Amino acid sequence: MKTSFKAMSKYSIGVDFGTLSGRTVLVNVENGDEAAVSVFEYPHGVMDDRLPDGRSLGVDWALQHPLDYIGVFRATIPAVLKAAGVDPEEIIGIGIDFTACTMLPVYSDGTPLCLDNKFSSDPNAWVKLWKHHAAQNEANKLNAVAETRGEKFLKRYGGKISSEWMIPKIMQIADESPDIYKAADRFVEAADWVIWQLTGRESHNSCTAGYKAIWHKKDGFPSNDFFRELNPLFSDLPGKKLSLDISPVGVNAGGLCKEAAKLTGLKQGTAVAIANVDAHVSAPAVGITSPGKMLMIMGTSTCHILLGENEKEVPGMCGVVEDGVIAGYYGYEAGQSCVGDHFQWFVENCTPDEYVREAESRNIDIHALLTEKAEKLKPGESGLIALDWWNGNRSVLVDVDLTGVIVGLTLATRPEEIYRALVEATAFGTRMIVDTFSENGVPVDELYAAGGIAEKNPFVMQIYADVTGREIKISGSPQAPALGSAMFGAVAAGKEAGGFDTIQEAAMIMAKVKPLTFKPVTENVLLYQKLYSEYKILHDYFGRGVNSVMKNLKEIKKEARS
Amino acid sequence: MKTSFKAMSKYSIGVDFGTLSGRTVLVNVENGDEAAVSVFEYPHGVMDDRLPDGRSLGVDWALQHPLDYIGVFRATIPAVLKAAGVDPEEIIGIGIDFTACTMLPVYSDGTPLCLDNKFSSDPNAWVKLWKHHAAQNEANKLNAVAETRGEKFLKRYGGKISSEWMIPKIMQIADESPDIYKAADRFVEAADWVIWQLTGRESHNSCTAGYKAIWHKKDGFPSNDFFRELNPLFSDLPGKKLSLDISPVGVNAGGLCKEAAKLTGLKQGTAVAIANVDAHVSAPAVGITSPGKMLMIMGTSTCHILLGENEKEVPGMCGVVEDGVIAGYYGYEAGQSCVGDHFQWFVENCTPDEYVREAESRNIDIHALLTEKAEKLKPGESGLIALDWWNGNRSVLVDVDLTGVIVGLTLATRPEEIYRALVEATAFGTRMIVDTFSENGVPVDELYAAGGIAEKNPFVMQIYADVTGREIKISGSPQAPALGSAMFGAVAAGKEAGGFDTIQEAAMIMAKVKPLTFKPVTENVLLYQKLYSEYKILHDYFGRGVNSVMKNLKEIKKEARS
Repeated sequence: MKTSFKAMSKYSIGVDFGTLSGRTVLVNVENGDEAAVSVFEYPHGVMDDRLPDGRSLGVDWALQHPLDYIGVFRATIPAVLKAAGVDPEEIIGIGIDFTACTMLPVYSDGTPLCLDNKFSSDPNAWVKLWKHHAAQNEANKLNAVAETRGEKFLKRYGGKISSEWMIPKIMQIADESPDIYKAADRFVEAADWVIWQLTGRESHNSCTAGYKAIWHKKDGFPSNDFFRELNPLFSDLPGKKLSLDISPVGVNAGGLCKEAAKLTGLKQGTAVAIANVDAHVSAPAVGITSPGKMLMIMGTSTCHILLGENEKEVPGMCGVVEDGVIAGYYGYEAGQSCVGDHFQWFVENCTPDEYVREAESRNIDIHALLTEKAEKLKPGESGLIALDWWNGNRSVLVDVDLTGVIVGLTLATRPEEIYRALVEATAFGTRMIVDTFSENGVPVDELYAAGGIAEKNPFVMQIYADVTGREIKISGSPQAPALGSAMFGAVAAGKEAGGFDTIQEAAMIMAKVKPLTFKPVTENVLLYQKLYSEYKILHDYFGRGVNSVMKNLKEIKKEARS
Repeated sequence: MKTSFKAMSKYSIGVDFGTLSGRTVLVNVENGDEAAVSVFEYPHGVMDDRLPDGRSLGVDWALQHPLDYIGVFRATIPAVLKAAGVDPEEIIGIGIDFTACTMLPVYSDGTPLCLDNKFSSDPNAWVKLWKHHAAQNEANKLNAVAETRGEKFLKRYGGKISSEWMIPKIMQIADESPDIYKAADRFVEAADWVIWQLTGRESHNSCTAGYKAIWHKKDGFPSNDFFRELNPLFSDLPGKKLSLDISPVGVNAGGLCKEAAKLTGLKQGTAVAIANVDAHVSAPAVGITSPGKMLMIMGTSTCHILLGENEKEVPGMCGVVEDGVIAGYYGYEAGQSCVGDHFQWFVENCTPDEYVREAESRNIDIHALLTEKAEKLKPGESGLIALDWWNGNRSVLVDVDLTGVIVGLTLATRPEEIYRALVEATAFGTRMIVDTFSENGVPVDELYAAGGIAEKNPFVMQIYADVTGREIKISGSPQAPALGSAMFGAVAAGKEAGGFDTIQEAAMIMAKVKPLTFKPVTENVLLYQKLYSEYKILHDYFGRGVNSVMKNLKEIKKEARS
C-alpha cells in the first residue's frame, strides 16, 4: 500500500553503462532528487587477456560481453524500484548512456555475432570496448587516406580520427575477419544495442554517430569512394552495415517491449529515450542546455562539452556534431588526455618516504597530504611551471608524441611545489582550450565541472577558477550521467505523461548544481595571468614545432631500445 | 732504531686545509706513496652563528678562528711522523693548500686583528671563510663600477666578480668597520698566513692573488682610480694593504722557522713551498703539468682546472691566471655549481617510499639503489633530457638566476630515469665547458677526475666518458690536494735535498692515477651526441635570453611572496 502522497510522484530511470559496471538511478521527475541507486558489475568485466572460451587475445585488445549489459537491466532496475518502494506505474521513462565508441557486429534482428556459435571463438565477433587499442594501424591508414583525399571531415575532429572510434574498429574486423564483416548486418554502438533490447526496434543516436562514426547531419557519412579506398569490402558500409536512420538525442526511441518489461519489472510501453554517451548526457544534468556554458568532466582525463549556435572549425577539438548534445545546437567536444593520471603519477613516482610516513601516521591519503601542503603556497610562489603533456596533448594540439616538461627547479624545490605545478599545468591546459574556443567563434561564458576531481578536490577546482578567471559550478549529483539519462527518459515520456516536452524544461526542474561554487580570487587571477603568459610561450615553442625535442627524444629512445 | 733501508727514504708533507678540518699526509718522495694521514677538526668549525665571545653574527656570515689552523700543524704533523715511524731528518719539504678566498686582516708581524683584544669582539676582525656570503652588496657595487668603467679584468673572470672573493670581503670590512680596515697592515689569504706562520716571513702566492684578488701578473691589481671609486679609503689598498710581492706557485717560501719547528717537531729550515689552493694543487697530483688536460674535481659542485699556452678570453670561465696552477702556463678555472647536490636533491625530494623500503631491506644506500636501476638503462632510453641548473649556471653562462628543467616526462617515467637524466645533464654541462674551451683556443685533449664522485661513482664517470667522448683518468689518491701540496713541498726542497727541481719532475714520480680508466663506448657516444644536440638547443634557448621564463618565474615568485 502506498500513501496517496507518494502516489502523486513521477519517476524516471537513468542507466549509466561504465567500463566495469552499470549504474541505475531512480530520479524524481518533480525535483531531480535521487530516490535509489543500484550498481551491477559486469561478470566478464573487461576482457583484455582472453575470450570466455579461453582463447587468448592480442596486445591492446579490450572486449566485453553483451549479456553483461542485459544483466545490468535485470539486476538494477528491479533493485531501485524495490529500494525506493516505487510502483512501476510511477515510472514514466527510461534513458541510458554508454561509453563510446563501444561497438559490436549484429544480425538484422539485433543478435550479436559473438552469441552465434559459428563466430563465438573469433575475438572480432565480440564487443570492442572504447579502450580497445588494437586498431591503430587501421586508424593510421584511415587518416592517411583522408589527408591524401583532402577529406574535409578531418577538420571537424581536430585533424585526426582516433583508433578508438567506429570506422577503425570496423576496419580491423574487415582486415582480420572478413567473414565476420560479411556476416554482420549491422555494426552498432553498444549504446544503441541496449536501447534495441529495451524497445525491440533498432534506433541510432546522433551523438555516437557524430562523434565516433564520422557522421554529419547534413553531409552524412564520408563518401563511398573514401570507404572503398579503406577496404574494397566497404562499398556496402554506409546505408547498409551502418544505418542512415539516425535520431537526434532527446527523442523517443519507442516503448518498452514485452520482453524488456519482463526483464526489468517495468510496465510495457514505458517511454525509452534514444541512446546517449556518458560525457555528453552530463551536460543537461548540470543545467547546460544552451551555448556559452562549458562542462568539464574531470577524472583521470578531462572531457569538455560545449554548445554552439554554428558549426565552427576550432583547432584541436575532438569533434563537433549537430544535435550531438542538445537538439538544435552544435555540440563541441574537447579533451585533456592526462589530468588525475598526472597527479597519480606524481604520488606513485615522486613522493618521498618522509611524506608517505607523515600521511600514514596521520592516517590520511597521500593526495590529501600533498594538497594540504600545496594549498599553503601562493600562485607563482614555487617558481615552477609545467606543460601537462605526460600523456600527450589532445586539445588543442592533437599530438600524442608530446611529453611533459617542468621548468624552474632549484635545490629548494619541494615535492608539494611540483605537485601544485602539475595541477596548475592542467588548469593552464584548460584555459588554452577555453581561449581557443572563444577565439574561434564559440564563446565560453561559464564553467561547470563534474566527475571525481570536481566532486572531491576543492584545491584543484579553486586553481581552475583562478587560472580561467571564471566561476565554476559543480555538478550537484555524483552520478551526473545517470541523472542526465533519467532526464532524457522524462523527455521521451513527454509532458502529458508527467515528463517534459524538451530537455530545457527537464533541466529547469531536474538539473543539479551544488550551492557552493568556486569563484576566482582577483589577486590569484592576476598572478596566474602572468604565469599563463609563460605557459603559452612554452606551449607554442614545444607544441607547435619550433623545437621538436620531444619527438626527437622519442626517436632516440626507439633507437636506444633497438 | 731505524733500519738502514728506511733511512734511505725521503718524505714530503702536504697539509690540506678544508672547510671543517685540516688533513696532513706524509708522502714518500720516491714513489708518491702515502705513508701516513692525520686529520684535525677545527675546534671552532665554521662560525656562522656567533663569535667565540658569544656575540651573534648576521645572516650569511661564515667565519673561522686562525688558531684552529695552527692546531692542525700542532696535532697532525707529529702524528704522521709517529704513525709512519719517520724521522724529521727524512722530511725534505712541506706544502699546504687551503680553501679560497679565506682571508683575514693582520698586523705587519702577521698577528691577526681578531687576536687583539681591541678588535676581537668585531666580527670583521675574524677570518672570513670562502663561503662567507655577507658581502653580496659590495660585490654588486664592485661589478657595477667595473662595468661602468669598462674594466677589462672582468673578462678574465667570466664577466663577474664573486662576493666570495677578496675585494668584496675587504669592502665589507671597510664599509662596516673602518677602524679595522685602517688598523690592518695587510689583508691576507689564510693560505699565505699559515705559510707565514711556518716560515716566519710574509709571502703571497699567485694562485689566490690571481683567481681571488683580481691580480694579474703583467697588469697587477686594478688601478687606484678603480679602488677609490669602490671606497675612498682604498687609496692605500694595493701596494700597502695588499702586498705586491707575489710569487708563482711552486717556489720556495723559506725554511721552517724555529717556532714552527718546535710546533711541528720538524727540523728548523725544512723547505716550505709557497701556498696554494685545494682545487688547483690537485692538478699535478694527477699528473697534469702541461696544457690539454682538464681536471674535474667532482663533489657537491665541480671545479675544472686546465692549463693553456696563452691567455684567451673563454666565455663563462671562473678565471685565468698566469702561473696560477703551474708556473709558466696560464691556469684556467671553470665550474658547475650543482653536481652532487643535484643528485642529493633528487634523493631527498623525489625518491618514492617503495624505493626507500627496497634500499632498507637490502641494506644499501638509496643512491646505490637508484644507480643500480639507472645503470640498466641505455643512453636515451628514458626519453628524458634535463638542464642542470638547479643551482644556477656558473660556466659557461655565469647566471645564478637560471633554474632546472626536465623535458620528456610521461606517465611511464620512473624515478631512476629522472635520476639518470640529472646525471646526464651534469655531464652535458661538462661537455659544454670542454667544447667552449676548445672552441676558444684552449684545447682539451684529456680528462682527469678527482673528488668524491670520481672516487666512488663509476656509473657517473662512465656517463661522463660517453658524453664527452673522452677517456677519463681518476685520481689515484683519495686526498689529491694533500698529495699535490706534498709534491710542491718536494719541489721547494729541490733536487739536491732529495726532491725535485720542477713540479713536472715531481709529477713524473709522485703523481697518481688509478689503473682503471673510463673509456667512451662508441654506441653510447653516438646516442649521447644526439642527446647533446638537443641539450644545446635547450641550453641556448633558456640560457641565452631567447626565453626568459626562468627569470620571469623568479620575479613572479617575489611578487607572490610580497
